[in-house]
Amino acid sequence: MVRARQTKLFAVVMAGGSGTRFWPLSRRARPKQLLSIASRRTMLQDTVARLAPLVPAQRTLVVTGRQHAEAVRRQLPRLPAANILVEPTGRNTAPCIALASEWIDRREPDSTMVVVPADHAIANARAFRRTVSRAVNVAVGTGALVTLGIRPSYAETGYGYIKLGPVLDRCKPAAFRVERFREKPPAAQARRFIGSGHYLWNTGIFVWQTAVIRAMLRRHVSGIVEVVGKLGADLRPSRSMYEKLPAVSIDVAVMEPTATIGGSPLVAVVAAEFDWSDVGSWAALAGLWGRDGDGNAIRGKVIVAETTRTTVLGSRRLVAVLGVSDLVVVDAPDALLVCSVRRAQDVRVIVSELQRRGWREFL
Amino acid sequence: MVRARQTKLFAVVMAGGSGTRFWPLSRRARPKQLLSIASRRTMLQDTVARLAPLVPAQRTLVVTGRQHAEAVRRQLPRLPAANILVEPTGRNTAPCIALASEWIDRREPDSTMVVVPADHAIANARAFRRTVSRAVNVAVGTGALVTLGIRPSYAETGYGYIKLGPVLDRCKPAAFRVERFREKPPAAQARRFIGSGHYLWNTGIFVWQTAVIRAMLRRHVSGIVEVVGKLGADLRPSRSMYEKLPAVSIDVAVMEPTATIGGSPLVAVVAAEFDWSDVGSWAALAGLWGRDGDGNAIRGKVIVAETTRTTVLGSRRLVAVLGVSDLVVVDAPDALLVCSVRRAQDVRVIVSELQRRGWREFL
Repeated sequence: MVRARQTKLFAVVMAGGSGTRFWPLSRRARPKQLLSIASRRTMLQDTVARLAPLVPAQRTLVVTGRQHAEAVRRQLPRLPAANILVEPTGRNTAPCIALASEWIDRREPDSTMVVVPADHAIANARAFRRTVSRAVNVAVGTGALVTLGIRPSYAETGYGYIKLGPVLDRCKPAAFRVERFREKPPAAQARRFIGSGHYLWNTGIFVWQTAVIRAMLRRHVSGIVEVVGKLGADLRPSRSMYEKLPAVSIDVAVMEPTATIGGSPLVAVVAAEFDWSDVGSWAALAGLWGRDGDGNAIRGKVIVAETTRTTVLGSRRLVAVLGVSDLVVVDAPDALLVCSVRRAQDVRVIVSELQRRGWREFL
Repeated sequence: MVRARQTKLFAVVMAGGSGTRFWPLSRRARPKQLLSIASRRTMLQDTVARLAPLVPAQRTLVVTGRQHAEAVRRQLPRLPAANILVEPTGRNTAPCIALASEWIDRREPDSTMVVVPADHAIANARAFRRTVSRAVNVAVGTGALVTLGIRPSYAETGYGYIKLGPVLDRCKPAAFRVERFREKPPAAQARRFIGSGHYLWNTGIFVWQTAVIRAMLRRHVSGIVEVVGKLGADLRPSRSMYEKLPAVSIDVAVMEPTATIGGSPLVAVVAAEFDWSDVGSWAALAGLWGRDGDGNAIRGKVIVAETTRTTVLGSRRLVAVLGVSDLVVVDAPDALLVCSVRRAQDVRVIVSELQRRGWREFL
């Protein structure tokens, strides 16, 4: 029997989002990952708790922005202070992962990383951990860059897709070589992807050996590993230094070219066995909360009458809804949103208008 | 030249409504007539101010319920305290008018009354007063019971209609004998009424000599004038006494039988020259406030984007509306209503549900 090599697993929670799509609850100082919209805990707290049985607090990192670091500390009191890495400005995921890999590499020469966004909703934490463990086995056994994929349930145009190559082995959950990454497709193409059965949704959750991703960052993103390597022990980059790093996603910088070139390292995907949502807008909440017989999803002190397919998130006040369909109503202490479900992706229209009017207290 | 007989004009403002149709702003303690929803003043204050050039405060009466008397006093500080008549319980308009006529009769043997609901919106106060003056001339000159009618602009099924008989004279605004009163008609009948040109909307605003209405109340509503006649100088009926009076409207008790019987007194209608609304629901407010180019009517700190035919009444908080049509949004400090314009007449559905749940703080 072959025993897996002993490697320490680190978790990197990417909590850098600014989240205008969840206005009026999300604000500059309180983005989506710091809100408790999917469960009673915040999405960040859920993300860390979901990984905790696999990864202890000492090996869990959170990367976040300056204006959110204090809230992250408050929400995760058990996390060592040194495990919160602060970006002076958001530069997409490649610099974030380079920074985290540097932190891990300085502490542990033989390590594996699971990289997760702080603002995704995952219903079944055990299935999630089973999938991550399987991805760790693939990453350690083959040196692959592994991503988690989701069997698509409809032709979503807001997600990236992964085209499956050959299956890797007979273990479960199934792992495949990635043939190709596809960006958010038009609706007709998304329907073809679904129909073919050869595509998974790309979750943006990654597993790889630290040494492998660092080698790939060195190869594809000029200077990035060297720059973070020169930082002091606290790994706090200056704004001027960080702004010079290319603001590029790890998908575009590393995953896509590596899969396209083929050869080594392998790019693999594990077909996840959990329900997942990137919670892209208020419209996604109904799926997480569950709908009643009329398709309504409700939280708080709310009365709905003769109303269908409507999501209501109440606050301290009573919300009464009568005779409407396909709406989202979100009541924050100082602001209220009434929005068509079909326009829930476009809440930034309101945020832009607030900026235009200079109503900064609502931003 | 014939000079009109000298008669003193008294105004009776009926402010007894409970107004569940304007929830969440209207509450048991704060019915529609005490709210400033049509203009900056409350509807009661507007009603009294509109009459003031015709009727001084000393001859203006307000009839209201016990729980609203204090608010009426606060809203009308110039009105003598004795001019606020308090009903222990609402018994429709006939007992209210009997009580007011008793108050007037004790002070002035030769008087005329104009009776107005406190919760109607009238755009042009001068035209209103011209119409009332004309109705006074008709009432004094002919002894008629006079009602004010409105040329209908569409086939409203929520109003009563008046069928016109022969024109009375050549003065303006035109006055007609009333051939018949018609209750709220079905839609097809309302359309026939409009098409015929022979019908006016019934405003429920009346003008008559005090002696004439008292004679008619004696004739049609057994004992009512005698009962209020036995009250002490303060005219404060007890609940047990008042509850014995028939809870009947002046229309059903007096106007309709008198018009149907014909003969004397004459029942007349003056065709009003002002814009009028009984402000029956939130949907009526857009007409009063005026709509923007997209058909939206807005008050308060509100952003509407890609939204049409929607009425928003903001409170202290920001209200943002995105991508919706035909809605009413009303934001009160402790409760919020989101309602289809088509269901605005049915807001009592919410009030009933609040009663069922025992959420008394919102009633």
